[in-house]
Amino acid sequence: MALLFKTDIDRGTAWAQAFAKHAPELELRQWPEIGNPDDIEYVLVWAPPEGVLSRLPNLKAIFSVGAGIDHLMAAGELPEGIPIVRMVEPGLTAGMTEFVVMASLMLHRFMLEYRSQQTAHHWEEINQIPTAQRRVGILGLGTLGQESARVLSTFGFPVAGWSRTRKEISGVDSFAGETELKAFLSRSDLLVCLLPLTPETESILNRETLAQLPTGALLVSVGRGRQVDEDALLEALDSGQIGGAVLDVFRQEPLPAESPFWDHPKVILTPHVASMTNPETAVLAVLDNIARIKKGDAPSHTVDLKRGY
Amino acid sequence: MALLFKTDIDRGTAWAQAFAKHAPELELRQWPEIGNPDDIEYVLVWAPPEGVLSRLPNLKAIFSVGAGIDHLMAAGELPEGIPIVRMVEPGLTAGMTEFVVMASLMLHRFMLEYRSQQTAHHWEEINQIPTAQRRVGILGLGTLGQESARVLSTFGFPVAGWSRTRKEISGVDSFAGETELKAFLSRSDLLVCLLPLTPETESILNRETLAQLPTGALLVSVGRGRQVDEDALLEALDSGQIGGAVLDVFRQEPLPAESPFWDHPKVILTPHVASMTNPETAVLAVLDNIARIKKGDAPSHTVDLKRGY
Repeated sequence: MALLFKTDIDRGTAWAQAFAKHAPELELRQWPEIGNPDDIEYVLVWAPPEGVLSRLPNLKAIFSVGAGIDHLMAAGELPEGIPIVRMVEPGLTAGMTEFVVMASLMLHRFMLEYRSQQTAHHWEEINQIPTAQRRVGILGLGTLGQESARVLSTFGFPVAGWSRTRKEISGVDSFAGETELKAFLSRSDLLVCLLPLTPETESILNRETLAQLPTGALLVSVGRGRQVDEDALLEALDSGQIGGAVLDVFRQEPLPAESPFWDHPKVILTPHVASMTNPETAVLAVLDNIARIKKGDAPSHTVDLKRGY
Repeated sequence: MALLFKTDIDRGTAWAQAFAKHAPELELRQWPEIGNPDDIEYVLVWAPPEGVLSRLPNLKAIFSVGAGIDHLMAAGELPEGIPIVRMVEPGLTAGMTEFVVMASLMLHRFMLEYRSQQTAHHWEEINQIPTAQRRVGILGLGTLGQESARVLSTFGFPVAGWSRTRKEISGVDSFAGETELKAFLSRSDLLVCLLPLTPETESILNRETLAQLPTGALLVSVGRGRQVDEDALLEALDSGQIGGAVLDVFRQEPLPAESPFWDHPKVILTPHVASMTNPETAVLAVLDNIARIKKGDAPSHTVDLKRGY
């Protein structure tokens, strides 16, 4: 039995080393060196090359390299009955929490305004607002959203979350489903988007929903670019409906050089780096699921194709 | 008996309201309306105007509006035997913790590099470094330093602190005194300065000490501007010895428009806003100490003039 993996070039070595360290007995095949397709029981991949998965008769599970599986879904037909596993691993969660906390504090503490002041050589204190007066709303309460909610609430922000189904999280107000989205948005002074990309969340941040936020609301966009109607967001930034944004994901990546987001004074822009899977810790999550499958148990964090994540 | 207070114009109302809410019986005098000097038992001040304190025969305590008392000390003769109280209040601590965590995460997560990339419309991912591989060092382990140390360690940074005397803080390596400064600096990839300004800490960050940091070390300067030899810091930034800095305090404030820090690509600059005393929470700290004095107890957080803070 073997595991076939395909990641970006840079990190291939890191994955191979991490597997060799923690599971020296596991035979590794690195794309495009498949070898005998009959050997492949597991695939670890971001976006599978077309036609590969259907050529693997003994495939037992498909592991996504990332938390999202939209790239995997977009890559074409998935073999029926083979479990797909989302990446849930502590390195990825920690990186996202760092980024969300950093971005939220930057917007909360006026770092956009101070960036402009620095450029203008202008020295002017802006009165601090206590975290208790800045209501944070988190779209998406999966592993990443829950951990961001937990840490942000330790800073004293009142935190609520919105998800498909209601969640019980200590200290976090839970809003659920389409009917409660408006109420959730209208109480969110600082909105963090950590949703998976599904047909339901595509363009969920649009003219109508952005208008439901309090005037001057702040936005941290770290889910997927296609969740944002970018024209509507630009209008909201220009009108002041959105007071500032940290944008890490875009409809087209790399973001084209002519995008108006680059030079927007109300935008802090990063190139889809909010978090990355850490091979060191991620192989343990993969190996744990391989062990479960070998014992005949269902793997953890499998994708429900009907709900789309 | 009365309390005389002098704060900046903006926040005078906030202080008066907060005192009125929590101690309606306390008579307030706002500078320059002293009234009868015999009435004044308490003074709350940042920098007392010359000659005022010696005209108050019944003065029982001097409260500093801020955590530092260097402005108070610099204002001239202080009446002998009258306790001076540093401001220790949860609003000030929370604000500083927010800022230090934000600034540390910004440097840790390459926000200086991404700021340059945004200006250049350039999209390029920089590989994330786990917090476990970024050793944080905190100069100053008072109330503010200890809380920053505690919160940064929850993100997984290995945290050490340096102070005049050794401290016992769970999860934080303690270095103490001049003899251990070099060892402390040489293990600090990210240095946060939260020291009080005293003759011993004046220009503590100079050519020699900056060179003792690991090459490319990151700096968060939120103590006092006079703790930094600014020429030495500029050289270290230009040579790459310091990889990036968040600077909130300067030798001259407001920072002159011609300072090279404004346009330095390795500097994130803020106008001395890391934290401000919050009148809402601060009056409780002042009132608590007034109650202690009335009972005949010593107030908390008094200044030791010999050590200078």
